[in-house]
Amino acid sequence: MSTDTRISDAVSQTRLWDRHVVMGSIGATARGGVNRLALSAADAAAQAELAGWAAARGFRCVRDEIGNLFVRREGMDRDAAPVLMGSHLDSQPTGGRFDGTYGVLAGFEVLEALADSGMHTRRPVEVVAWTNEEGSRFQPGCMGSAAFTGVFPLDRMLGMQDRDGVSVSTALAELTKASPVEFRSMQSVKPAAYLEAHIEQGPRLEAAGATIGVVTGIQGIRRLIVTVRGEEAHAGTTPRAARRDAVSAAVAVISALESMCNDAEDAIRFTVGRMEVTPNSPNTVPSKVEFSIDLRHPDAALLARLGDSIAETVQATASGRRCAAEVKHVSHVPPTVFSDTTVGLIRTATEALQYRYLEMPSGAGHDAMYLNRVCPTGMIFVPCLRGVSHNEAESATAEDLAAGARVLAQTLVALAGS
Amino acid sequence: MSTDTRISDAVSQTRLWDRHVVMGSIGATARGGVNRLALSAADAAAQAELAGWAAARGFRCVRDEIGNLFVRREGMDRDAAPVLMGSHLDSQPTGGRFDGTYGVLAGFEVLEALADSGMHTRRPVEVVAWTNEEGSRFQPGCMGSAAFTGVFPLDRMLGMQDRDGVSVSTALAELTKASPVEFRSMQSVKPAAYLEAHIEQGPRLEAAGATIGVVTGIQGIRRLIVTVRGEEAHAGTTPRAARRDAVSAAVAVISALESMCNDAEDAIRFTVGRMEVTPNSPNTVPSKVEFSIDLRHPDAALLARLGDSIAETVQATASGRRCAAEVKHVSHVPPTVFSDTTVGLIRTATEALQYRYLEMPSGAGHDAMYLNRVCPTGMIFVPCLRGVSHNEAESATAEDLAAGARVLAQTLVALAGS
Repeated sequence: MSTDTRISDAVSQTRLWDRHVVMGSIGATARGGVNRLALSAADAAAQAELAGWAAARGFRCVRDEIGNLFVRREGMDRDAAPVLMGSHLDSQPTGGRFDGTYGVLAGFEVLEALADSGMHTRRPVEVVAWTNEEGSRFQPGCMGSAAFTGVFPLDRMLGMQDRDGVSVSTALAELTKASPVEFRSMQSVKPAAYLEAHIEQGPRLEAAGATIGVVTGIQGIRRLIVTVRGEEAHAGTTPRAARRDAVSAAVAVISALESMCNDAEDAIRFTVGRMEVTPNSPNTVPSKVEFSIDLRHPDAALLARLGDSIAETVQATASGRRCAAEVKHVSHVPPTVFSDTTVGLIRTATEALQYRYLEMPSGAGHDAMYLNRVCPTGMIFVPCLRGVSHNEAESATAEDLAAGARVLAQTLVALAGS
Repeated sequence: MSTDTRISDAVSQTRLWDRHVVMGSIGATARGGVNRLALSAADAAAQAELAGWAAARGFRCVRDEIGNLFVRREGMDRDAAPVLMGSHLDSQPTGGRFDGTYGVLAGFEVLEALADSGMHTRRPVEVVAWTNEEGSRFQPGCMGSAAFTGVFPLDRMLGMQDRDGVSVSTALAELTKASPVEFRSMQSVKPAAYLEAHIEQGPRLEAAGATIGVVTGIQGIRRLIVTVRGEEAHAGTTPRAARRDAVSAAVAVISALESMCNDAEDAIRFTVGRMEVTPNSPNTVPSKVEFSIDLRHPDAALLARLGDSIAETVQATASGRRCAAEVKHVSHVPPTVFSDTTVGLIRTATEALQYRYLEMPSGAGHDAMYLNRVCPTGMIFVPCLRGVSHNEAESATAEDLAAGARVLAQTLVALAGS
């Protein structure tokens, strides 16, 4: 391969698209999305599919203690720290076909492009599918990358349980049985850099008519669980004045929190996505409501202040309705700022390929958030239709997906050395 | 038995209390309540217990098409229309030991008191345990009495399903197998009158220091289901302005309905007891919320007007949050007014026994509501601790329970003839 040849020219738009079609058929839902909850049978099938493709190309496949799956193409210096590319194959219960999947398949496309062009990088290059990025079945999300980077202890992650009481370690044992590959300890891998391609999951690129988002960082995320406790009572006989109605109190609490998060610039992301009512019977005044809060902002100080003030608002509002309340802080990930080196290389590659681009922070959390703590990290966004994501209607074009893979390929080669 | 002897003297406070202890052990919960969902194994066990007691006393036991269980003591005129006493043995998932159970056991105590004193009534006397009064597992509630009185078609009731898709007829077949008794068609029974003893389930008798509530009627009940539909979106990337957040809209809708029902006299009973969020994932903007409304008031016109105006408030509030909404009217039972005859006989018996009493409407719905459509009907209330009901902490004293049974016995004899 001559030095004039760009690795991006070896990226195949058709192959990349076809791989998405196949992956989209695993855990496919009736409405065109996927349901591949972390460590489910569908997740195992997706991993097995990827491992099959890797074997067909002669790439080595390994899995670590938390189930992260790595596909490795050797470098000229086999002992050099590898450059990692990837994302995740698990999805929301009613997720789309591109969230996560794209980052894994774009990375795999780069591996194939390298192999097709016979290009040898100095460093080994690995594609990784991180375990349980979504945090839907097991909390916290980004579990695989958090364990890999030592942000959360491996043992604690393995002990986390889903709503049916199934632990990560039990589910992982089943996945390993369904999709067996060689084991490699996470301790033995110190990545030189990490790149993650992803759909934007927001409306900005589409609105700007840009093909590539050069991602500068990730807004911070706080996760909380609020429990409001009242008293069960008969719906027909208990006057309003005598009620301690947990639904009524929870409604007032959520309203108060929404007002608190109602910023003029519409930058605060406040979401109550999960809610459980007890005993959940139409003619009983409810005794308990538990709900989740997902709070995000790119500014570390504002996010800290806002998150810290939730408990006071919750307590004051609930007690005004004669209910008690607890606020549990599940996680607090401050905003992430990617290294100038990786962001610079992605910008350079994008400009060389003459794609229109925006520099932007990521609204969503990604595994890149944790990888950034241990190595230079960067992300490449491509547009998705109407910014819709975490939705079966999620959509992206073959052209944009290939454009992102080309930028990924160029950046990878710059980091891995040719 | 001399005409001077009062049947109420044959009522045994100890026996009545002990029967409550035994019934309270069937489906007992850790916190002192019962979980005997309609047509469950626990409900079958409670029916079997009652049937066992009936057999021991030589009373005939029969069950009808919807599972209503009748214990009969013959009258001198075997062909005369029977006087019925009863209530129900099913409970809320976290119900108390007295709601329903008391009315059945007080009726059975009266049968035993009659047998013990060798008193022969002209009319046959029957104790009935109506099927599925609570409406917790299967909707609608008061299913057994509604079918018995022809208010709802039997076939439709038998086809109703619980959340697991199990139909009433399937569950009833299992109950019949677990607790077999002789069949008697509901068509063959035309009751002469119906009496139901019950704990008040509200705070009024306790506050007034009264032992007996002479119940004048039952407030009307409307049941509705509201569905709010938005759009799933990523919690991190979707600005507030672009969201169609079903939880946020549902919270606004419930707030608006609460304001609408906020009457100065605190007579409107508005309850959102059940709520289901879809997809119920912490980091996905919810696409759907379904919740129940239980609305009650003693005034027919006000209840009709209030219930009819719910849809408009729901639609306007939801569309203000860019969500769609549907309102489904599940049932509408207008207020009930009991017959002057039965209310008068209960008042006379209470005065003769020198109990302090209140005349009052019932805040809760009861099977008496439907029986009142086919025969003179009355209810007798006794106090319960702090008015707490539909709660494992539900409590009543042996003295008050016996007092209610004595009033029931006197009234029954007046209706059945001695």
